[in-house]
Amino acid sequence: MSANREDAIVARLRAALRRAPAVAGIGDDCAAVEAPRGKLLLLKTDCVVERRHFRASDSPTAVGWKAVCRAVSDIAACGGEPQHALVTCVLRDKQTGRWLDGLYCGIEKAGREFGFHVVGGELARTDGPAVINVAMTGTVARREFVGRGGGRIGDLFYVTGTLGGSLRSGWHLRFCPRLREARWLAKNIRPTAMMDLSDGLAADLPRLAAESGTGFVIDAESVPRRRGVTLRAALSDGEDFELLFAVPKAKAARLEREWKRKFPALRLTRIGHLAKRGMAQGLGAARGYDHFARP
Amino acid sequence: MSANREDAIVARLRAALRRAPAVAGIGDDCAAVEAPRGKLLLLKTDCVVERRHFRASDSPTAVGWKAVCRAVSDIAACGGEPQHALVTCVLRDKQTGRWLDGLYCGIEKAGREFGFHVVGGELARTDGPAVINVAMTGTVARREFVGRGGGRIGDLFYVTGTLGGSLRSGWHLRFCPRLREARWLAKNIRPTAMMDLSDGLAADLPRLAAESGTGFVIDAESVPRRRGVTLRAALSDGEDFELLFAVPKAKAARLEREWKRKFPALRLTRIGHLAKRGMAQGLGAARGYDHFARP
Repeated sequence: MSANREDAIVARLRAALRRAPAVAGIGDDCAAVEAPRGKLLLLKTDCVVERRHFRASDSPTAVGWKAVCRAVSDIAACGGEPQHALVTCVLRDKQTGRWLDGLYCGIEKAGREFGFHVVGGELARTDGPAVINVAMTGTVARREFVGRGGGRIGDLFYVTGTLGGSLRSGWHLRFCPRLREARWLAKNIRPTAMMDLSDGLAADLPRLAAESGTGFVIDAESVPRRRGVTLRAALSDGEDFELLFAVPKAKAARLEREWKRKFPALRLTRIGHLAKRGMAQGLGAARGYDHFARP
Repeated sequence: MSANREDAIVARLRAALRRAPAVAGIGDDCAAVEAPRGKLLLLKTDCVVERRHFRASDSPTAVGWKAVCRAVSDIAACGGEPQHALVTCVLRDKQTGRWLDGLYCGIEKAGREFGFHVVGGELARTDGPAVINVAMTGTVARREFVGRGGGRIGDLFYVTGTLGGSLRSGWHLRFCPRLREARWLAKNIRPTAMMDLSDGLAADLPRLAAESGTGFVIDAESVPRRRGVTLRAALSDGEDFELLFAVPKAKAARLEREWKRKFPALRLTRIGHLAKRGMAQGLGAARGYDHFARP
């Protein structure tokens, strides 16, 4: 399952680190540590790198939106709500003044929309591509927390929205993290496992299955695609920021019925089920995005 | 007071952001937000950039140590204790495998020494200089929190250790954050204001005074210097990671007496006092480090 080199590196680091008394950590969308009063504190760090995740010519407001919304999407995928953000800007010489104002305009817009505050940051310089790092805290009631590891054999899995072509369509810069939907799921349906799709279904689904100790069978033809996108691209492109989650069969009918009423504008598609460990059926040769793939 | 361009940028951003319900935020060493049971949650983000804060030839273990200890130093300067760290590694193609292992070896060493756990992270690629970002949480009892803003006219201020020549001596890669000392101060002396020295006394002291709404008078000749370091370098070099703090005159004798007994190996030097707003005496032409100085 680890043709993905990034996963192999993460696995090695994970083995090397002292185990923290955390509910979730490396391998989940967020770390989750105990907080008083039946709550968990969610912790996330994430970055965008110029020429990898955005272009110098992209609107800085869109870059700011994307940088923080990636972290919001991870907090959401754990069932939580974002609270505080810390923003590190490592900028090229030409990127001060108006560029930074634009960036923060996008960040503030997202903060108003999704209910978090920027409480700190750091500024530094580089002579290479700019890097914007966002560290975000969130909160979730312990009983509403959803990790990647609770899926069971036979659970059905679903994706929201449509996949693929995120870069070409500009979706990666203006996507809407599925915070409202994920909160509703965590409260009302209690998925056994959930994550957001950032590296493409073909990379992310095996991660969810691995954390759950299961395999998977996916009906690739059923994967909802953005218009004009091939199946392979829908599985591999990444930066969809849609939700992938698993629910026990017994909850499927209620989920599908209530979803239609609650979120009529957002497609929900059942695309497969979790199967016994080692089974990985339906992805074909699709791979997903691997930051550390050998060229 | 803002010949420092970085300070001007920070001031502008601060004005543009919605005010969070935080005890401390932008302008302090850490953000501090309310937590249950009389505690504050401290939040910090900080980064090191290749060719700015370390060299490609530096030991990755030392780079890892430095990257996290900078954040530990900020948590300490607020009177707190570090708890959790999130590490973002934006690496060049050649920096995987052994380099990453070395980096995490330094991070883990610091974690054991200062009592925090790495609970998450992010890996990404760059075709420019590597960037290591550390986001860290800490905790402090509300009554033991020390910000930069509580200094009053007449308070005496002190520095720990010796200043200057951090780069040349290698101190910037192997410094020891003053966690034990800062915790003792916060519990027993209650400084009115405290910070760690990262950009040099000449940049940092004006910041502490500005947050406190005071000016300052410094006896520059009394500033403790590392051997072979000029006065100007001691004021300007930066990356000292020593503590700068202010205490009311009435506490000075007790502080000096108890410090000697408690920390006999670490120098403590009184170097000036806070004065009325607008007064900035004794720094001469020294400037401190400004990431955003015009070349």
